[in-house]
Amino acid sequence: MIDPVALTADLVRCPSVTPTEGGALVLLEGLLSGAGFDCTRVDRNGTSNLYARWGARGHARTFGFNGHTDVVPVGDVAAWTHDPFGAVIEDGWLYGRGATDMKSGVAAFAAAAIDFVADTPPDGAVVLAITGDEEGDATDGTVALLDWMDRQGERLDVCLVGEPTNPDHMGQMMKIGRRGSLTAWFTFRGKQGHSAYPHRALNPLPAMARMMARLSDHVLDEGTDHFDASTLAVVTMDVGNPATNVIPAEGRATVNIRFNDAHSGAGLIAWLQDEVDRIVGETGVSVSMETKVSGESFLTPPGALSALVSEAVQLETNRVPEMSTTGGTSDARFVKDHCPVVEFGLVGHRMHAVDERVRVEQIHQLKAIYGRILTRYFADAP
Amino acid sequence: MIDPVALTADLVRCPSVTPTEGGALVLLEGLLSGAGFDCTRVDRNGTSNLYARWGARGHARTFGFNGHTDVVPVGDVAAWTHDPFGAVIEDGWLYGRGATDMKSGVAAFAAAAIDFVADTPPDGAVVLAITGDEEGDATDGTVALLDWMDRQGERLDVCLVGEPTNPDHMGQMMKIGRRGSLTAWFTFRGKQGHSAYPHRALNPLPAMARMMARLSDHVLDEGTDHFDASTLAVVTMDVGNPATNVIPAEGRATVNIRFNDAHSGAGLIAWLQDEVDRIVGETGVSVSMETKVSGESFLTPPGALSALVSEAVQLETNRVPEMSTTGGTSDARFVKDHCPVVEFGLVGHRMHAVDERVRVEQIHQLKAIYGRILTRYFADAP
Ligand SMILES: [Zn+2]
Ligand SMILES: [Zn+2]
Repeated sequence: MIDPVALTADLVRCPSVTPTEGGALVLLEGLLSGAGFDCTRVDRNGTSNLYARWGARGHARTFGFNGHTDVVPVGDVAAWTHDPFGAVIEDGWLYGRGATDMKSGVAAFAAAAIDFVADTPPDGAVVLAITGDEEGDATDGTVALLDWMDRQGERLDVCLVGEPTNPDHMGQMMKIGRRGSLTAWFTFRGKQGHSAYPHRALNPLPAMARMMARLSDHVLDEGTDHFDASTLAVVTMDVGNPATNVIPAEGRATVNIRFNDAHSGAGLIAWLQDEVDRIVGETGVSVSMETKVSGESFLTPPGALSALVSEAVQLETNRVPEMSTTGGTSDARFVKDHCPVVEFGLVGHRMHAVDERVRVEQIHQLKAIYGRILTRYFADAP
Repeated sequence: MIDPVALTADLVRCPSVTPTEGGALVLLEGLLSGAGFDCTRVDRNGTSNLYARWGARGHARTFGFNGHTDVVPVGDVAAWTHDPFGAVIEDGWLYGRGATDMKSGVAAFAAAAIDFVADTPPDGAVVLAITGDEEGDATDGTVALLDWMDRQGERLDVCLVGEPTNPDHMGQMMKIGRRGSLTAWFTFRGKQGHSAYPHRALNPLPAMARMMARLSDHVLDEGTDHFDASTLAVVTMDVGNPATNVIPAEGRATVNIRFNDAHSGAGLIAWLQDEVDRIVGETGVSVSMETKVSGESFLTPPGALSALVSEAVQLETNRVPEMSTTGGTSDARFVKDHCPVVEFGLVGHRMHAVDERVRVEQIHQLKAIYGRILTRYFADAP
């Protein structure tokens, strides 16, 4: 029996701030290899990733777990009450960077998987796809693992991502999809001049203000069956003109959109371009736009996989988890192109903040939930 | 006969970048004292000013000239084709910082005044009130001279400010008033949050964008008898948020208003406060405002003084000068509280820019215009 709390503590002690491996994947590789998992390091461009499979390749049923061992920087280390890489346990809490996001999740699914294949070897395969770059650009993390799997003929039938999903209590929420995220950077260019002679200048700022007000006021949708309404946030507007008697030549603004399945990145970009064209037509200011879609929205419609997870959660926590699509992005946005994917993990106490911590008994509870999911998944085999 | 071109050149060679005296006022004091002017240095808080009177105090008719010897910095000295303090004359142009704004104007009225009192001593007084701080804060320049005059019982019946007033050709334009200038600084405060959870944050930027769009779209007036329409320029908007997944807590915006005699600084501030209250009511964002009125609008209605200047300009240039109220602020905004004031000077070639320069023959022409004004003013004496 693997103790998931001890394993979490061992992982927290690895200083694996993105993109540093920090010993975390090496530790897991040793543990999993010893338990009969076939391990491959799938490193790319300085990012470390680990692919571990138990069971023969090409099995009819392959259950996958996905997670990450990298963590965000500790921030103001003086503000922490415990060493962020010390894994100190106090009053039932385990403290440390990555305690909830998500070394405990990785420890819980690794422990559950090792115990499961040892106790009741399934007629199938269990895969752990663990990345060292989820918190960074994520270009060489889970994407690299999926690319490598494609080339090797490796595949999953379903996947569970172990990110923290519960706002306050264990069992409250699972995620069956995520909104997409699109960022657009606008530059408004006019003609510099003196405030006393505005007719000789072309001030780009009224155009910028009007367009940002319009985008903010626009209702993208009212929500869909499984999603909240899409939202748009103007996150910055900058000019940097210190002279009150000077009309500036240029202003910049950035917008971030979190969108549901009523939209696509391309559709939103087309809409933004229409708004650019409109303001250019109205004002004569020239506007350039750059965009980045960091993830399309996706949904794994409620079905066999979500029911399986929900039942396991109910049996352990006596709560029916809400099937949610809220929150930021996760690597599930990559996995969804490979196979049905849902997310369930811990309560995200102080994720990315100082004094990140996890309740010790919830790590045990999470391992038990993951164990139930594996048992039930392979018990249902045809 | 004083050569106003040589005097301009001597003044340009004094490096009198605000607030440095640079020898310019010392030079003028020596020249004017030698010509029978009673000179007083009216320095205040590190700013140098010169008050020079010919004729007994308390005369029924006192004609005043106002101007400044301080200049703005040279900027990129490598971009100048001639030494900015060299007063090089080439192809009929005299080059240097202050060549048009306004050492040539000061030289022209000093030369005209000295020659006039020597040739035809008037039954009256001629005053030159010259400041070393017009380009800076102007708090201890012409204001200090006027304060001192009040205390001493010194006064002018009329005043001519020698700032450059002609856009392209000598004789094109005089100024009989100026628009006022008001700057307002706004800070919009909401609540920081994550872009994925906008309902937990309060983004101040939609409020900022909407209010700046409203202010830009507002028509202050359509112009008045002697003034162009008032204008409002949003001159900067700044947030400085580099993180696209963070909704910022605060944004700042600055607005500059140039207003005619349909408005007062206080009236505009009351309007801006109404707009602040409106956006606060609509959005819940808190907004603070700071304001500064750097000058109220003013008008010396067309009358004896402007007619006198106009006639002198016509006789020298064969042009009827437009009686304008356009442009930025000048020290006339202070003088207007003391006596009727108009402005006439040179063509402002490259004021405040590199290669500032003046046509040599126009300095002679300006001295002749100022001489005609003095002659006619005292000839009309009752
Ligand atoms: Zn995470
Ligand atoms: Zn000036």
